[in-house]
Amino acid sequence: MNNLRKRTALFFEGNGEYRKAGHYIDIFLISLIMINVVAIVLESIASLAHQYKHEFLMLELGSVIIFSIEYLLRLWSCVERIEYKNLDCDNFQRRLKYLLSPLALIDLMAILPTLLMMFITFDLRFLRVLRLLRVFKLTRYSRAMQLLLQSFRDESSSLLAAFFIMAVVLILASCGIYLIEHDIQPDKFGSIPAAMWWAMATLTTVGYGDVVPVTPLGRFFGGVITLLSMGMVAIPTGLLASSFSEQLRKRRIMFSDAVHEYLHDGELDGKLDNAQLEHLENLRCKLGLSKQEANKAIKSQLSARTKNLYCRHCGERQD
Amino acid sequence: MNNLRKRTALFFEGNGEYRKAGHYIDIFLISLIMINVVAIVLESIASLAHQYKHEFLMLELGSVIIFSIEYLLRLWSCVERIEYKNLDCDNFQRRLKYLLSPLALIDLMAILPTLLMMFITFDLRFLRVLRLLRVFKLTRYSRAMQLLLQSFRDESSSLLAAFFIMAVVLILASCGIYLIEHDIQPDKFGSIPAAMWWAMATLTTVGYGDVVPVTPLGRFFGGVITLLSMGMVAIPTGLLASSFSEQLRKRRIMFSDAVHEYLHDGELDGKLDNAQLEHLENLRCKLGLSKQEANKAIKSQLSARTKNLYCRHCGERQD
Amino acid sequence: MNNLRKRTALFFEGNGEYRKAGHYIDIFLISLIMINVVAIVLESIASLAHQYKHEFLMLELGSVIIFSIEYLLRLWSCVERIEYKNLDCDNFQRRLKYLLSPLALIDLMAILPTLLMMFITFDLRFLRVLRLLRVFKLTRYSRAMQLLLQSFRDESSSLLAAFFIMAVVLILASCGIYLIEHDIQPDKFGSIPAAMWWAMATLTTVGYGDVVPVTPLGRFFGGVITLLSMGMVAIPTGLLASSFSEQLRKRRIMFSDAVHEYLHDGELDGKLDNAQLEHLENLRCKLGLSKQEANKAIKSQLSARTKNLYCRHCGERQD
Amino acid sequence: MNNLRKRTALFFEGNGEYRKAGHYIDIFLISLIMINVVAIVLESIASLAHQYKHEFLMLELGSVIIFSIEYLLRLWSCVERIEYKNLDCDNFQRRLKYLLSPLALIDLMAILPTLLMMFITFDLRFLRVLRLLRVFKLTRYSRAMQLLLQSFRDESSSLLAAFFIMAVVLILASCGIYLIEHDIQPDKFGSIPAAMWWAMATLTTVGYGDVVPVTPLGRFFGGVITLLSMGMVAIPTGLLASSFSEQLRKRRIMFSDAVHEYLHDGELDGKLDNAQLEHLENLRCKLGLSKQEANKAIKSQLSARTKNLYCRHCGERQD
Repeated sequence: MNNLRKRTALFFEGNGEYRKAGHYIDIFLISLIMINVVAIVLESIASLAHQYKHEFLMLELGSVIIFSIEYLLRLWSCVERIEYKNLDCDNFQRRLKYLLSPLALIDLMAILPTLLMMFITFDLRFLRVLRLLRVFKLTRYSRAMQLLLQSFRDESSSLLAAFFIMAVVLILASCGIYLIEHDIQPDKFGSIPAAMWWAMATLTTVGYGDVVPVTPLGRFFGGVITLLSMGMVAIPTGLLASSFSEQLRKRRIMFSDAVHEYLHDGELDGKLDNAQLEHLENLRCKLGLSKQEANKAIKSQLSARTKNLYCRHCGERQD
Repeated sequence: MNNLRKRTALFFEGNGEYRKAGHYIDIFLISLIMINVVAIVLESIASLAHQYKHEFLMLELGSVIIFSIEYLLRLWSCVERIEYKNLDCDNFQRRLKYLLSPLALIDLMAILPTLLMMFITFDLRFLRVLRLLRVFKLTRYSRAMQLLLQSFRDESSSLLAAFFIMAVVLILASCGIYLIEHDIQPDKFGSIPAAMWWAMATLTTVGYGDVVPVTPLGRFFGGVITLLSMGMVAIPTGLLASSFSEQLRKRRIMFSDAVHEYLHDGELDGKLDNAQLEHLENLRCKLGLSKQEANKAIKSQLSARTKNLYCRHCGERQD
Repeated sequence: MNNLRKRTALFFEGNGEYRKAGHYIDIFLISLIMINVVAIVLESIASLAHQYKHEFLMLELGSVIIFSIEYLLRLWSCVERIEYKNLDCDNFQRRLKYLLSPLALIDLMAILPTLLMMFITFDLRFLRVLRLLRVFKLTRYSRAMQLLLQSFRDESSSLLAAFFIMAVVLILASCGIYLIEHDIQPDKFGSIPAAMWWAMATLTTVGYGDVVPVTPLGRFFGGVITLLSMGMVAIPTGLLASSFSEQLRKRRIMFSDAVHEYLHDGELDGKLDNAQLEHLENLRCKLGLSKQEANKAIKSQLSARTKNLYCRHCGERQD
Repeated sequence: MNNLRKRTALFFEGNGEYRKAGHYIDIFLISLIMINVVAIVLESIASLAHQYKHEFLMLELGSVIIFSIEYLLRLWSCVERIEYKNLDCDNFQRRLKYLLSPLALIDLMAILPTLLMMFITFDLRFLRVLRLLRVFKLTRYSRAMQLLLQSFRDESSSLLAAFFIMAVVLILASCGIYLIEHDIQPDKFGSIPAAMWWAMATLTTVGYGDVVPVTPLGRFFGGVITLLSMGMVAIPTGLLASSFSEQLRKRRIMFSDAVHEYLHDGELDGKLDNAQLEHLENLRCKLGLSKQEANKAIKSQLSARTKNLYCRHCGERQD
């Protein structure tokens, strides 16, 4: 029994002997999620929903059953995973901990709306659309996205400040246009929150054009706000651009440091064994570096070991 | 009396023993400002203003009283602050100097409109909206924003040049479209200032669409201007992106220099005492560096002290 | 015969003695492609198509004949080109390989629609417009574009992740607005795919304004989405900006490495002969570096040869 | 006479003893140009043009007389300027050369329309608007703009490639939408050039919304094009961002190299005399560096002279 549980855990993590099988199950689940999302989107078209009523129901039932099995299996086998195995508590507490982890909550969210639909007769359309949240199940599979989110986290304080500047400018812009255009277009600029709709569309350069100032003074003020919008757009873009550059630099150094570690801590024969190469390959994937870049880093570290004439960080020869 | 004044100053600065109390008062004031802004925005909705007339009035009165007390206490205790204490003048001159400082003017602006409303019967709506300027009181609390504004200041000459290019292109675009579309749409392109409304919306990629060229020549000219708009948007974004990268580099070096200073100027035991660590922590906050980055810089400086094999500026080992 | 074939191959590659002739034929073909594109675009205007029916036909026939000859000559002579000559197979297989290469397929695409038009009476307008695909023939001639595409390929995983985030936000935005505005504007937000039209225009900051939310809740939700749109636009821009910086750095190092190679592998007289200089000039063009930058790199490498006091990679003196 | 001419030349260049006077004349001319631009823009408003007819005429006459005198004085004194003085030809040829320089042509353009208006009775409105070209006279005074334009020139080949990609995408987008929407909206998508108006507004994210696809297929295609528009906007922005970073790096090195030169070529006392400091200050202005940055570079070079422990390029201590 415990053996089977261990195998299930390995299977879902795609480690050890189940590497290939884990890969296939990943592809199957990703495809299923995508088909589900497309189906739910299409189901919102009344004519299609009527015509293919049966097919949509079948797909939904099948998917929920598969997702439920996946959810239960993951819950059952989670106690064998390294991060939970070493916790100092019994299996029930481990499972509770897993239940409350973000990924498990996302998995639950994917099956809950359908289960609810069976028992209660709440606003059906709302529950149907809620099923779309299962698109978040994909986060488990995308490494590049996790790296992207890292950039957001690193720049969070700057982005928050940018957001704060944006909020201040937004409030001032809405107030100004409200004072200027309130009497001429009471239906469009009747209150500050209403004026915010225009200010928002302008400051983000979306510019719907359903609400626009018409008085000369309002247009002059609007022109100044459109100018400010360029700055508003430039700030987050600039922050992310510099953050991405920084991340690239950091990751290159991290990989190079890892290679260096392996070469200095192992037996001093200046070679990498297979286990080390596999670890480096895993690290390369995790850091999102290209194979070319990784090879260059490894090669230069190897040369540096013997001749000490390459820079350990950029891999360039120093002679 | 003087002792109480000194305590009040420390309290508002959040230094020394009043660190925690200062932190709480900060949170209280920030919350109050935000509640005020939301209330003023909502008050502009006629139905809400009527229904919750009493509540809005109470909140306004309470807030103004609190802000007034804060203003007076800050004014009274400012003579104890380091930057004013060391000035070679009497307390009255110091207070006058403080009164004219930007932050004090912002504080005044936050209470003035309500005071005015009590005495004069000027355009009420205008005064009401003016109260929103108290959102600027928040600038006192945001460090990341001050760093962001630094980037703007550093790039001010370049941004001004970009603004100048924008102005020239704007004038030429308005003239061109005025000449081409003036006869066909005299209501929309009747004069160059009127045509500027279109040019502004186009060059900033806002694109309302309430005013558009309709002749083939006008559309060709408009197409060229939309193309130019991409350049117009790219210039400030590019400038800020490169400026943010530069700032990141500078701040990392500044922190590293400070660690180096402490290690070399103190007793040469190669260790940082608690006071120094606290100073470094303050500097880290002021520079907006992450803890991880700061630890790395300190660690590499410490190693360099003894072994001299890390680069002091990037923290990379040099062996 | 073989001699003529070899000359044709050299002629199209613009190598050896046919450098100048190859250059002229390039200019001629580029001009012809551009004239064709302009003509096809203009031909879609009914009045022009009628008036200049004869001229358009003549141009089309002439162009197709020239492109066909070019296609056949390239196919015939491809066996003499270095990349195909060294393949271990007979001429037929080499030509088949060439036929399936991207550039040959583009060449075929340029003549196929007209040939089809002569034989079948399929949807004529569609075939006519299809002729515009011959604009892709220009890719053969643009080096800077190939470098630009390299950046896209280097950042492909990050861009894909950005695209994935965009897709998730798009789906959630459409669902939200569909739930909120479905009952008020059933003609505009009648289904999720219909709501996607609004979400797409908003998230890319295009903002047509033909479909906008009108309820207060819808506008609040719409405001949040416009805010997110700034992030959506910032991600690919930031990725490309950091990628372009990276490319610039890499190319500078690649050129410097090549100069270093020539100086160290050749006869050790510390000079570059004409053949080497020509190779470097070719490399400079391929890498898209400015002449000034290339000269600086060469000069510093030459000094380093004798005095060893310039950094080989950035060209700065090390004294 | 020659003495007077020499003084006039110095006066306009703002060099030597006329530094202050040159500064004042610059400010006067800049103000006059700006007043002119504002006046011409306002004159296009019919009511204002009628009411202040006399004032506009006076301003115009006064300005043209001043600009003409400036033009003639510059032409007369140009032979004394260093760049023309050393030419191996007589004064007439020098003046002819000056006449054809861009800045002289701009100056001519500023007075020509008014002169033409006096003699011919051509389309008056066109000539009036043409007077706005005198805004270009301002280019003479903006250094930051010249640095900005340098970035454009450095990246010209990349920007051209980006422009080419944009053109290809534009053509394909217009064709696609033309084929899809031609039958439904023949008035809006009647020909490819007409469809380009939509494609242009979409690809640059301007998005007027006066022309939008209405069929489901057209909207799907439109959605794909809006997605591509993000890439289109990202390319020039990314190029300029990386180019600005590069420029910043280059300028810092150029200034540092100049300081190094002065310290090594002069008398080896490790000090900068006043003339050198003035030259460096001029260079600093020309390169657009901040005073802080320049001081840091000078300081580190001075230290390096004696102790040789600062990096000459970044100015950081190497101990």
